[in-house]
Amino acid sequence: MLMRVLLCNDDGIHAPGLAALVTEIAKVAEVTVVAPEREQSAVGHAITLSDPLRAQEYFKDGHFFGWAVSGTPADCVKLAICALMDERPDLVISGINQGSNTGINIIYSGTVSAATEGRINGIPSFAVSLTSYHIREFGPAAHFASRLALKILDVDLPSGVFLNVNVPALPQDEIKGIKITRQGKAHYEEIFHRRTDPRGRVYFWMDGDRVAEEDDPDIDDRAVQAGYISITPIHYDLTHYSSLEKITDQVLSLW
Amino acid sequence: MLMRVLLCNDDGIHAPGLAALVTEIAKVAEVTVVAPEREQSAVGHAITLSDPLRAQEYFKDGHFFGWAVSGTPADCVKLAICALMDERPDLVISGINQGSNTGINIIYSGTVSAATEGRINGIPSFAVSLTSYHIREFGPAAHFASRLALKILDVDLPSGVFLNVNVPALPQDEIKGIKITRQGKAHYEEIFHRRTDPRGRVYFWMDGDRVAEEDDPDIDDRAVQAGYISITPIHYDLTHYSSLEKITDQVLSLW
Repeated sequence: MLMRVLLCNDDGIHAPGLAALVTEIAKVAEVTVVAPEREQSAVGHAITLSDPLRAQEYFKDGHFFGWAVSGTPADCVKLAICALMDERPDLVISGINQGSNTGINIIYSGTVSAATEGRINGIPSFAVSLTSYHIREFGPAAHFASRLALKILDVDLPSGVFLNVNVPALPQDEIKGIKITRQGKAHYEEIFHRRTDPRGRVYFWMDGDRVAEEDDPDIDDRAVQAGYISITPIHYDLTHYSSLEKITDQVLSLW
Repeated sequence: MLMRVLLCNDDGIHAPGLAALVTEIAKVAEVTVVAPEREQSAVGHAITLSDPLRAQEYFKDGHFFGWAVSGTPADCVKLAICALMDERPDLVISGINQGSNTGINIIYSGTVSAATEGRINGIPSFAVSLTSYHIREFGPAAHFASRLALKILDVDLPSGVFLNVNVPALPQDEIKGIKITRQGKAHYEEIFHRRTDPRGRVYFWMDGDRVAEEDDPDIDDRAVQAGYISITPIHYDLTHYSSLEKITDQVLSLW
């Protein structure tokens, strides 16, 4: 029996990265697409509680392609599992994102958020991103996603753990291999451009540059820069375990 | 010299929980309020990249209260630090949220997100929530936040680690003390109510109940239910370290 795969993204149902993923995954699995009706980048793990959600059938070249949802990536995955799909998916894949999801950016990432939501629901999941904002050659990333889809059920991932995959924007034969990485910690040095609108009111545009990355080859960004596919095992338990004991005495004295 | 404290929330600048926090913190520190102009619950760690942000001066009883921002809690903290405040804050406090931020919910939480953003910027931070959706007695939570504000710089928190505080909705003298906790893992069993609008179009409302919590007194929710203030040290490095080595062989074979 074919594996059932739910595909989602944050660039929206029209995005070429999603189309490339559908093409490859449909060769090896039964695919259901449930994706935001418009771009939802940097929405983090937002969900829609105060508005109703709509899901519209979306057709492409005369064929049913998937469901376009009026919400966030996390909404899409919840709605797919609870309301749109007849059976639970065996796997959730989110992507292919146009642009890397590495380092601290993954906490802002709608792409990662959809995979998070799949894993919260107990389903093996991964997010996949192409590490370029302009190169649109999704072939190698889609090909690798399909290989990983067939193998991920054999990978020994504990409950709550899933994968964040970043594929360098290189031709297939220039990709050097795979590296298992940890999330980098470099952040962005932000600035806000202060402008005045035609009615004299002030507004701000967010902008920023990434601060120099740590020089460690085991970091997601470094692996990609060196030509490797970066795979980071991630989870949604934010507890900083090694602090638990250490802060106890200091904090309990506050009572 | 007085400590400079940036206050933010996700319930919006009009929220009574924020007002209670301002009242208490202003007794011990120099306070700047930068909060969303309207409620932003469950926005996760969203940031606004595709729209400009506006910050309006917000007055209360004839006095300047703070800045009302047209964005998310994370936007507020970024904008405060980079554009609105003359000097960097010494501390970021987010809250007091109306309703608990425990277990898996913290990944959806705008309240936690504002504290995350403070910590990303290298500033000691904590989020504080009152664990009731209807009891509006913020006094004990505000009082504790003020005690923690004065002491947090002495707590030995590594780079990137901050605190998620949940205060039970009890009178001060019924709170039993403090417990250092880990994030619970129970998730919500979600359902979507399927309805039809007056024009015959289908829409969905998200709804759900929390699945029975693990029976472990060291979990955030359990501590609160037992009448304790729960303090969880959390961080934004999502790497699941113990999987790094374990999956290497399994995943490298995909190449």
